[in-house]
Amino acid sequence: MLWDLARANGPEAAARAALDRIEAWADPALFLHRIPAAEVMAEAARLAAEGPRGRPLFGIPFVIKDNIDAAGLPTTAACPDYAYTAAEDAPCVARLRAAGAILLGKVNLDQFATGLVGVRSPFGTPRNAVDAACVPGGSSSGSASAVSAGIAAFSLGTDTAGSGRVPAMFQNIVGLKPSLGLVPTRGVVPACRSLDAVSVFALTAEQAATVLDAMAAPDAADPYSRVAPAGWRASGGTLPPVLRVAVPEEADLLFDTPDDEALFRTALFRLEALGATLERVSIAPFLALARRLYDGAWVAERTSALRDMVENHPGSLHPTTRTILEGGLSRLTVDAFDDFHAVAQTRLLSRAMFAKYDLLAVPTAPGIPTLETLAAEPIAANSRCGTYTNFVNLLDLSAVALPSGFRADGRPAGITLIAPAFAEARLCAAAAALHHAAALPLGATGEPTPPPAAGTTPAEGEIPLFCIGAHMSGLPLNGQVTSLGGRFLRRDRTQPAYRLYALGNRPGLIREAGEGGSAIEGEVWAIPAAGIGPLLAQVPPPLGFGTVALESGPCLGFLAEPSGLPGAPEITSHGGWRAYLASR
Amino acid sequence: MLWDLARANGPEAAARAALDRIEAWADPALFLHRIPAAEVMAEAARLAAEGPRGRPLFGIPFVIKDNIDAAGLPTTAACPDYAYTAAEDAPCVARLRAAGAILLGKVNLDQFATGLVGVRSPFGTPRNAVDAACVPGGSSSGSASAVSAGIAAFSLGTDTAGSGRVPAMFQNIVGLKPSLGLVPTRGVVPACRSLDAVSVFALTAEQAATVLDAMAAPDAADPYSRVAPAGWRASGGTLPPVLRVAVPEEADLLFDTPDDEALFRTALFRLEALGATLERVSIAPFLALARRLYDGAWVAERTSALRDMVENHPGSLHPTTRTILEGGLSRLTVDAFDDFHAVAQTRLLSRAMFAKYDLLAVPTAPGIPTLETLAAEPIAANSRCGTYTNFVNLLDLSAVALPSGFRADGRPAGITLIAPAFAEARLCAAAAALHHAAALPLGATGEPTPPPAAGTTPAEGEIPLFCIGAHMSGLPLNGQVTSLGGRFLRRDRTQPAYRLYALGNRPGLIREAGEGGSAIEGEVWAIPAAGIGPLLAQVPPPLGFGTVALESGPCLGFLAEPSGLPGAPEITSHGGWRAYLASR
Repeated sequence: MLWDLARANGPEAAARAALDRIEAWADPALFLHRIPAAEVMAEAARLAAEGPRGRPLFGIPFVIKDNIDAAGLPTTAACPDYAYTAAEDAPCVARLRAAGAILLGKVNLDQFATGLVGVRSPFGTPRNAVDAACVPGGSSSGSASAVSAGIAAFSLGTDTAGSGRVPAMFQNIVGLKPSLGLVPTRGVVPACRSLDAVSVFALTAEQAATVLDAMAAPDAADPYSRVAPAGWRASGGTLPPVLRVAVPEEADLLFDTPDDEALFRTALFRLEALGATLERVSIAPFLALARRLYDGAWVAERTSALRDMVENHPGSLHPTTRTILEGGLSRLTVDAFDDFHAVAQTRLLSRAMFAKYDLLAVPTAPGIPTLETLAAEPIAANSRCGTYTNFVNLLDLSAVALPSGFRADGRPAGITLIAPAFAEARLCAAAAALHHAAALPLGATGEPTPPPAAGTTPAEGEIPLFCIGAHMSGLPLNGQVTSLGGRFLRRDRTQPAYRLYALGNRPGLIREAGEGGSAIEGEVWAIPAAGIGPLLAQVPPPLGFGTVALESGPCLGFLAEPSGLPGAPEITSHGGWRAYLASR
Repeated sequence: MLWDLARANGPEAAARAALDRIEAWADPALFLHRIPAAEVMAEAARLAAEGPRGRPLFGIPFVIKDNIDAAGLPTTAACPDYAYTAAEDAPCVARLRAAGAILLGKVNLDQFATGLVGVRSPFGTPRNAVDAACVPGGSSSGSASAVSAGIAAFSLGTDTAGSGRVPAMFQNIVGLKPSLGLVPTRGVVPACRSLDAVSVFALTAEQAATVLDAMAAPDAADPYSRVAPAGWRASGGTLPPVLRVAVPEEADLLFDTPDDEALFRTALFRLEALGATLERVSIAPFLALARRLYDGAWVAERTSALRDMVENHPGSLHPTTRTILEGGLSRLTVDAFDDFHAVAQTRLLSRAMFAKYDLLAVPTAPGIPTLETLAAEPIAANSRCGTYTNFVNLLDLSAVALPSGFRADGRPAGITLIAPAFAEARLCAAAAALHHAAALPLGATGEPTPPPAAGTTPAEGEIPLFCIGAHMSGLPLNGQVTSLGGRFLRRDRTQPAYRLYALGNRPGLIREAGEGGSAIEGEVWAIPAAGIGPLLAQVPPPLGFGTVALESGPCLGFLAEPSGLPGAPEITSHGGWRAYLASR
């Protein structure tokens, strides 16, 4: 993998490999603008000379969809007459470069990101890296092909109706569609401004999460930018002890072939094997809402964004794109509000569902069309691809598409996990576990899926708390921790610098200023940040919270005030509260 | 006041007084449906027999605008042909009754809540209680008249463009327009569903806050209902030590008469006298957005809600209302998205403004029209009334309108305080202080404004935290506290049993086990419970949180680990961090 190559051998080796791969791949419909090899290598050399400096994407080659600005390069949105030269990087691109990633160029897409198939471009259709007879998927066609083919370690797409997920399935890779507003869409050619998201393609969910972490941050100049909850991160997430997964009822499921259906069921079995509980739910209201995206107010939002092209240069548009965009000109606002109220009503149902389940699991698409079937019915076959993706942005959800295996004909199928906004850590942790369990080759590279990293670190919005007494598992106050949503992370112990005292039914921990302290055993629990206050409110003096030096590093934990300890027996020699209890 | 009468003499005395006042007032255009006196007295007797049982509105008489459902009564929205009998109370009404309030009936309004003047009703125009030559204000005309006249202790209105604020100014009372979604709008005839708010009229800001507290809660069946931040309450708020108030630039201000202008300036002087800092800001972008409410997509949202009436029964509509609603039929969605993107763009500016200021203060309206001027220009004079109110719901803000005094001709003027969503506690505390400082009679009752109650205790969901160092007001880390929603409660100090040490730029507090400690000064801040964790996560060792013994009792506070203090200079003799800083 290019990702590992950059990590192991540095920017120049990774860049060289990427450039070689571009040449070997030789798809004339993939890049709309290539950065000259010499410039790429110069950038790699510059990075190598600087060294990593802690940059999370140091030396990792990537490409971007050509509806995203990169300074000094043309942005075409696959419409030559629309093209302009970008004055500056879109914030998402600037942040990736600041994180050490190396841009290789800009790749093909369905014109104006309108489509899910990848064939609606005057620059031709990028080759599907898994099966050249199939559509590449779109609208982020080139972004998916480049990653699946091993040309780029990751890529940026955009996703309004599924453009960041459908191509992931079609090319056997991971597609992460982040929460709306998490990554600024400034510097991106709008499709539906209120629903557009910059998305990530990568070979693994963990890599996608790392990329998202590097570019997710508010942008004060972007009206659709949002502030994530405190502590939000996509990477490093863990799964709850029991993952509650909703799955569509049979009546809501649609597949192209029995193999597509079987592969979806196989993925569900793998989820159960990972300890998840599965329950069938009706997603009929979501599917009904989805139909409004292509036959409702949002058609006019697309038209609104490109009004000058539609009204004054219709001949410059791809014929299919033109048909769609012209359909937005005559729609009435009085009808549009029916659509908006339907969104609000359906969001109620979605909130109620996600109060009961951690994730919704759906097929990524009913199946993968060939170039031939698509040519026969260019609009209907395209719409069908969005069956399970269209409702996600309308409902303000986040989603990750990942491979579920190959049909007997060798063509890929996929599963998509969906969660509320800002739940990317949970999504990516579940996707990593499920992807690894599937033991599939990565993209079209033939390389195996790596194991997921151990999940003993706190997730988004959690604070680790070192518990030393009755809050530990199985002890009387553990319910205070679990009722606030606390999760057991690991056993740990302090550096050998503490003393422990018995205060009735609770221990008191004190750091020893001089020599002579010991290591004290305890448990690290991940507490939702919002629960720390309520937990602390139940802690009586002389106990409080402070920073405890653990073997693994500093951690919030229980400490006692020395003034409250006179007369309390010292129990340091037991090494911990459990051992002390056992000794009594 | 009826409010005090209910408190002092119980439901029957209050109900009797309200019924007598209705008879004495004798305005045939006020009530669209009166609950028979015998039923009102029976309800009062029932309540009296039960006793208060902790109900916050026990025995307090109120009325509701006749676009809000009350079980078994007709809802007309001031359109006889639209009328229906409500099967159940709207949730807001049900909650008020559960809180002990006594419904007197349903009052007149501008038809379909479309208007700001109160004259657009086939049932006549309710009398302005302050000056019968003036319009009552609308669309919540009857709701304002009933409170100003002393008929009801409070009332419900609705507010989409200012209908809960403009009538408050016109009748010298308080109008509280809560955050969108805080009070369910289920059971309310929609105007613009996405922008409608149930509002409260009362004689004082504190009474309005108490009413809002009784009815603000999510409704799982209302798609526009929202969950308030943990610990939200409208009443019991306190003002920050320094209230930062934004005021429109001269160029953005518009008044009908020099007296209206002078009364606005007087109100600003009173704010400064209360310790506020005032700065001029441009609200031109807000005023530009406001114009879109009456000449943009939202006209069609009104039409959409009443489409059957507009398309099939136009003759049943008030002529002015018909003109407005028919204007929504032909608008194009492709234009509507320009309006929506303008909202998003202007919300950015609003967020930036409220990052710098606690409140925006504007006139409630440029001036009060007479019935005569309004008849001469029914649409233009109406629109002018919304100059300072139209943008508030579009920008997802909360607001309270309160009296600022009387012009030389005896007609009322008003000021409106505006804050971000869910900042009702701050709004109502500021309004109460400012209203009291104005020392005006209440409504048309002739009674004086009572002093504001002290709000120095934490609200539900808040945890008081004793701050002793850089987190105190005006010091470098105060932003950590305020950004988490912290509210200043009071100065306080420890019992004389502590020692204070200087740890660089932060103090360390230790309880002295033996004799010889001192009292240390600090500030108690109310922190939303959910914010304690994030705050604690920013506190470096050797500092932590524990229970501090204050003069006023035990309180969560900052404590230091003694092991972290060797070498740190003791500064106990200064008595506190501020005094220590001043000495350096």
